[in-house]
Amino acid sequence: MAELPSEPSGWLSENELEQIRGELPLLYINAIPVRINPMGELTEVGLLLRVDDGVMSRAIVAGRVLHHERIREALMRNLEKDLGGVALPRIPTNPQPFAVAEYFPTPGFGPFTDTRQHAVALAFVVPVDGDCEPSQNSLDIVWLSPEEAASEEVAREMTGGQDVLLRQALAHCGVLP
Amino acid sequence: MAELPSEPSGWLSENELEQIRGELPLLYINAIPVRINPMGELTEVGLLLRVDDGVMSRAIVAGRVLHHERIREALMRNLEKDLGGVALPRIPTNPQPFAVAEYFPTPGFGPFTDTRQHAVALAFVVPVDGDCEPSQNSLDIVWLSPEEAASEEVAREMTGGQDVLLRQALAHCGVLP
Amino acid sequence: MAELPSEPSGWLSENELEQIRGELPLLYINAIPVRINPMGELTEVGLLLRVDDGVMSRAIVAGRVLHHERIREALMRNLEKDLGGVALPRIPTNPQPFAVAEYFPTPGFGPFTDTRQHAVALAFVVPVDGDCEPSQNSLDIVWLSPEEAASEEVAREMTGGQDVLLRQALAHCGVLP
Amino acid sequence: MAELPSEPSGWLSENELEQIRGELPLLYINAIPVRINPMGELTEVGLLLRVDDGVMSRAIVAGRVLHHERIREALMRNLEKDLGGVALPRIPTNPQPFAVAEYFPTPGFGPFTDTRQHAVALAFVVPVDGDCEPSQNSLDIVWLSPEEAASEEVAREMTGGQDVLLRQALAHCGVLP
Repeated sequence: MAELPSEPSGWLSENELEQIRGELPLLYINAIPVRINPMGELTEVGLLLRVDDGVMSRAIVAGRVLHHERIREALMRNLEKDLGGVALPRIPTNPQPFAVAEYFPTPGFGPFTDTRQHAVALAFVVPVDGDCEPSQNSLDIVWLSPEEAASEEVAREMTGGQDVLLRQALAHCGVLP
Repeated sequence: MAELPSEPSGWLSENELEQIRGELPLLYINAIPVRINPMGELTEVGLLLRVDDGVMSRAIVAGRVLHHERIREALMRNLEKDLGGVALPRIPTNPQPFAVAEYFPTPGFGPFTDTRQHAVALAFVVPVDGDCEPSQNSLDIVWLSPEEAASEEVAREMTGGQDVLLRQALAHCGVLP
Repeated sequence: MAELPSEPSGWLSENELEQIRGELPLLYINAIPVRINPMGELTEVGLLLRVDDGVMSRAIVAGRVLHHERIREALMRNLEKDLGGVALPRIPTNPQPFAVAEYFPTPGFGPFTDTRQHAVALAFVVPVDGDCEPSQNSLDIVWLSPEEAASEEVAREMTGGQDVLLRQALAHCGVLP
Repeated sequence: MAELPSEPSGWLSENELEQIRGELPLLYINAIPVRINPMGELTEVGLLLRVDDGVMSRAIVAGRVLHHERIREALMRNLEKDLGGVALPRIPTNPQPFAVAEYFPTPGFGPFTDTRQHAVALAFVVPVDGDCEPSQNSLDIVWLSPEEAASEEVAREMTGGQDVLLRQALAHCGVLP
């Protein structure tokens, strides 16, 4: 998740956070915003369009869990941060993540990497009913069909292994092509 | 689930269904309607109040999956049957049941019994946003807190082991007292 | 699952079963046998090699749940039927399937088809520790890496949409390439 | 989880860890060791018997995830720490926790508390096949039936809300009484 902009740092200064990153796994949430139909079926996946250092990439919603913040609060806060305040996300009733993505600073320990740190992200699929608008962190939000989302082309535009997590989410929802 | 009224019988006559019941497991859905808050937390559980042969009982939503009917269609149809047409159930995006309840006609094979048949029910927790009104099958729908729903008193009013499934649902949603 | 050999028919004659197939969804289990390492990681997937009417295909373990048979008994019975008596399958402690595969006799209702019937299969990933030997129903059992199992080539040799279920299983275990 | 002995501190001194505890949620694993029968059914739950400051309590296996350690490695390390080296735990193939237990240093934010810190524990049910022997951290390991494990009496001997997690685990495995 190295390409993501810096997170709100809770009660930590950037220097302190930098140091901790070499010493402890940091807890994150990953959220994949989706559109569903009245029968609950996933129809579209939302991906954030970012430009970091002049390189365009697509990303899912990601962010740190702060001290004394509940998982569902971290989900809501990070979804609002990336999708705006009227996205109306349906935070899961069951707090069990569909996957746990383990991002390591060095490659070779699985599909997920984050050059900054060892981050462990609880991953959720979150239906959103309202309007989504790009925040300061992203240029745009693009809605893709499950087929497009699972394509090689989209995978090439994602970083840190998030394309793998995206396909896991599609499989979990029964719409992996 | 012996106390439940007869299901719509698809293309089967009652006689045919009666015979099949002795020969095959029948596929059911079980749905536990819940109210949630904007953070997704379960706040209330809806139970149907029934009177069968003069005996009052509380029940969850249950019904058969018909031939050529998808699970999510069976969920929707049975929820509408028991809660009315404006309950606005949120059919799960992920079609994985939180539990599979195996009802056997003879006791001693686990918590669930159904004197009529061997029924296997895929069980889901379904948030409902709209108004619920009792259908022909039930006198009333009562909304209970997780504490009330898990109480001994409510358990005594449920049949076929559905109180066990109800507590499993509360545990799954992280609100088992 | 049309290519699968006929199941043990419980207390039903073939004629009776034939008739019921047009009237009710039939309950199945699908099991994906896997090899795991001591850390629990999936290292290999086992696929059955079948020849039906002169056409070779690869298949997962599948079979009907019989009357008064528990899901875990149906899993054990069908695994023994296809892998032999010393495969030592680890039947799941948690009876929640990772997916529910809905096979319809007509195409267009999702990834899974079975020309014979509407079958609903509870799908499980089952680690096997012992020796597996092909039964009367299959020519061989082939063990593939997750990469091979998810390949286009293997997908082309599977029928009824089981390649989709196989990739869902790999995703569920965190090893979808 | 305040009653638990101090964890191996990775590359952190106790002072550093103390400071971080006030600034970040710490990532833990919780593991509930169980005995299962050949059909995969949970037959017994293992609880650690501890004496801290002269007070006896029962606990599940718990421990911190270290920097650059995978969840399954943390599970194995902490299970070996508490159950000894020949317990032969079956680390889950699917890395999805059955629950995420959020321990807060102040009460009122759910069932789980840990006076030392905000800890987020990924919780797993882990069948163990081998011999278990108490380590330096516990006096004994006691095996209880699901009924005993879910009893009020055992709940009173557990701290930090772990009795709630234990009942969630029993529900997840379909054996909550």
